[in-house]
Amino acid sequence: MSQEILAVYPGSFDPLTNGHLDIITRSSKLFCKIIVAVTTNYNKKHTFSLDERLRLLRESTKDLNNIEILSFSGLLAKYLEQIKSFVVIRGLRALSDFEYEFQMALMNRNLNKKIETIFLIPDQSYTFLSSTMVKEIAMLGGDVSCFVPKCVEEELKNKYQKK
Amino acid sequence: MSQEILAVYPGSFDPLTNGHLDIITRSSKLFCKIIVAVTTNYNKKHTFSLDERLRLLRESTKDLNNIEILSFSGLLAKYLEQIKSFVVIRGLRALSDFEYEFQMALMNRNLNKKIETIFLIPDQSYTFLSSTMVKEIAMLGGDVSCFVPKCVEEELKNKYQKK
Amino acid sequence: MSQEILAVYPGSFDPLTNGHLDIITRSSKLFCKIIVAVTTNYNKKHTFSLDERLRLLRESTKDLNNIEILSFSGLLAKYLEQIKSFVVIRGLRALSDFEYEFQMALMNRNLNKKIETIFLIPDQSYTFLSSTMVKEIAMLGGDVSCFVPKCVEEELKNKYQKK
Amino acid sequence: MSQEILAVYPGSFDPLTNGHLDIITRSSKLFCKIIVAVTTNYNKKHTFSLDERLRLLRESTKDLNNIEILSFSGLLAKYLEQIKSFVVIRGLRALSDFEYEFQMALMNRNLNKKIETIFLIPDQSYTFLSSTMVKEIAMLGGDVSCFVPKCVEEELKNKYQKK
Amino acid sequence: MSQEILAVYPGSFDPLTNGHLDIITRSSKLFCKIIVAVTTNYNKKHTFSLDERLRLLRESTKDLNNIEILSFSGLLAKYLEQIKSFVVIRGLRALSDFEYEFQMALMNRNLNKKIETIFLIPDQSYTFLSSTMVKEIAMLGGDVSCFVPKCVEEELKNKYQKK
Amino acid sequence: MSQEILAVYPGSFDPLTNGHLDIITRSSKLFCKIIVAVTTNYNKKHTFSLDERLRLLRESTKDLNNIEILSFSGLLAKYLEQIKSFVVIRGLRALSDFEYEFQMALMNRNLNKKIETIFLIPDQSYTFLSSTMVKEIAMLGGDVSCFVPKCVEEELKNKYQKK
Repeated sequence: MSQEILAVYPGSFDPLTNGHLDIITRSSKLFCKIIVAVTTNYNKKHTFSLDERLRLLRESTKDLNNIEILSFSGLLAKYLEQIKSFVVIRGLRALSDFEYEFQMALMNRNLNKKIETIFLIPDQSYTFLSSTMVKEIAMLGGDVSCFVPKCVEEELKNKYQKK
Repeated sequence: MSQEILAVYPGSFDPLTNGHLDIITRSSKLFCKIIVAVTTNYNKKHTFSLDERLRLLRESTKDLNNIEILSFSGLLAKYLEQIKSFVVIRGLRALSDFEYEFQMALMNRNLNKKIETIFLIPDQSYTFLSSTMVKEIAMLGGDVSCFVPKCVEEELKNKYQKK
Repeated sequence: MSQEILAVYPGSFDPLTNGHLDIITRSSKLFCKIIVAVTTNYNKKHTFSLDERLRLLRESTKDLNNIEILSFSGLLAKYLEQIKSFVVIRGLRALSDFEYEFQMALMNRNLNKKIETIFLIPDQSYTFLSSTMVKEIAMLGGDVSCFVPKCVEEELKNKYQKK
Repeated sequence: MSQEILAVYPGSFDPLTNGHLDIITRSSKLFCKIIVAVTTNYNKKHTFSLDERLRLLRESTKDLNNIEILSFSGLLAKYLEQIKSFVVIRGLRALSDFEYEFQMALMNRNLNKKIETIFLIPDQSYTFLSSTMVKEIAMLGGDVSCFVPKCVEEELKNKYQKK
Repeated sequence: MSQEILAVYPGSFDPLTNGHLDIITRSSKLFCKIIVAVTTNYNKKHTFSLDERLRLLRESTKDLNNIEILSFSGLLAKYLEQIKSFVVIRGLRALSDFEYEFQMALMNRNLNKKIETIFLIPDQSYTFLSSTMVKEIAMLGGDVSCFVPKCVEEELKNKYQKK
Repeated sequence: MSQEILAVYPGSFDPLTNGHLDIITRSSKLFCKIIVAVTTNYNKKHTFSLDERLRLLRESTKDLNNIEILSFSGLLAKYLEQIKSFVVIRGLRALSDFEYEFQMALMNRNLNKKIETIFLIPDQSYTFLSSTMVKEIAMLGGDVSCFVPKCVEEELKNKYQKK
């Protein structure tokens, strides 16, 4: 029972933060294999291209050997069926997260009742972290070295230094 | 990796509701073995005795073969060390749950940083259910048949009919 | 169609505050008749006796002619059936109210699906008011004249002056 | 007193969901007449044109005989004065709703103190539903048949299939 | 100790409301000198130009003699270092404010651990007020005279009357 | 202006935690003098006697020279008038804190409109800390050395070891 569970951690990771990385590491200890599934679609404009986001994730998780970084488009519920996974992992930080995540989990269960969403709490020092905030600070020339992996920090510098 | 995870679902289960049962069932599909750990201690006065709570849980979960019903006293973090488990399962319902659960999860991680708390969302029809409400309704002579397992319903009748 | 709706505003009113009175007045403009239903039961110890609570409510609402003050025991859902009402009125103040009220409304609908709970927002100056706070202030000798009707203020003085 | 109350249920209904329809049905049992008032204005870009939104609402409520579907532009408080209504109906789902709705209700009361906002809770199965989520799912090719009326489902297919 | 504290109240003030003014007045009684620091940057499009926002703030605070109105660009944490202030003042209204403000305060402390954020609660009558709502009402021709200072009201009329 | 502000940090401190101490230290940098005002009254049963609470506070703050530890009974608003202070300091941790604190702050302002409540956020590592939790852990034999000052830890051992 449950020994061979493949879990999916979906997100836009625009860009990856230490909070995401913390959730990935925790997940890797709970399940056999974790697919970090990077969203490609929506009208949502991303700061980092899909290729950049995949590359930064791969570089930052290279020491974890049961993690795979993939992209997906379309409905998460359909993607899960395709790869035969029914476990979704999400990090919970604050109140606003809670509500949105709760809604998404119920909606996904509604689309396919086998889908189970599992919530993990990141390290307390990351409860205030979000990709949006990291980008704002980087854009204004602030130091983000303790919020993101080294490779993300450099990419952020490349993106915003030129301006 | 993670194939043999033993997870613990702690609570007072005073009494067991369909919401608890729903979380137990979901957990049983995610991990190798689940220990439902019934709290015995605190000054907290329980409506159902420890024996009653254990019996009702055992009766209601007898068809799930990777569930064990046990009691524990003292600190949860210590109990987890004793039984060599580091995964705690909790159900999340509403806002107030969220805050209390968040605090407990961080506190437990603080006492032993290997402890990971995993949150599951019960079926939407149970988001309003609590043991306290069930007892209030039963005490006032209301029908609780859709909120608790059959055996709990009967025990509630025994408890409150006499009054 | 809905012209003859009898609505029920249940509560313990221990004691009546200006916030409760505000909700009663607003309700009286929305429905044909309002029954303010004072709870008599539970293990809950009240500061004011049922008779006192009824008397203070009657005195404070004597100028509203479609309000009746009654007491009830047992389950609200059953009481509603007895008096053939299916509309419950509740005031919403803050976040904690919201959650509890939401749960109660869903539970009542579950017990009888015809029951509709209607939420009203009291005047903004009463969003911080609760019976408990009023009693604490009165007990410590504070002035509560702007939080409760005159007759309640006097009764509070009688209760706490002697001590 | 209150027998002839005209209540207004305002919204953008972009598009109508089963959650909206549930609130409309509940409202129709509480008040003499309900005007579903569709907003036309703001800079907000709508997915469905005003005509489409009106038509889908009319088609979906044709069996309720005290419902009228109208559009309005400008301030809700002014519109209410024009049609001599002072009762606004709103559905409450989750925490974020609560806060926004609370603010709107207080603001409207501030603009005209006779305006009373009444909150109803939709069926529990719709607490996770929003027009935005429905559109996202439809856009990604997911099945929305249990979230919206038949006619809305078809319109959504027309809108997103072509892309 | 602390006698000479310079505190900063940052914001976009697009436009100034009575709620902001209330916080400014309260702050002026707590600290030696208050700098109201108007943000100039971000991609965020403002309704009022920086010059307009500064002028309206200066006009509305001219009777308070320990208030200075300045603009700043870049990271708040850096600006604070430049002007040798480590106290940030923020108003707290509702739940959503709370979360965002909490995150910002922790982030700023993270960027410079000397930064202390102090939260004040505006007058209860302003708990529903936001610049966004004021602009929406003004745009739709509503009366905003009790939500903003006189000079802001006039500017809003100028902006929206022409349309 | 404001140079000589005396601020009051009221609480029951049953017992003092590192979270309280963190707020005291932060306050001591913001205002001339801080009175930590320990509540003596209410029906509330305390685990630590007033004398114990005062002593532990004095011992833990002996290195801060603008802090005075005092007790008070009765209404906080009256006490503030007596000692001619109008600034109350409170720590904000989580959502439930927020609501209660908001209510208290508005109530105190209502009792005396000069009273200003100032909210500070403790160090992120203390956001999950409460006196109640500390006592529960100590009672169950858990290690609380990183949650409370040394002298409180010893007192807790004395209290609970004997049992």
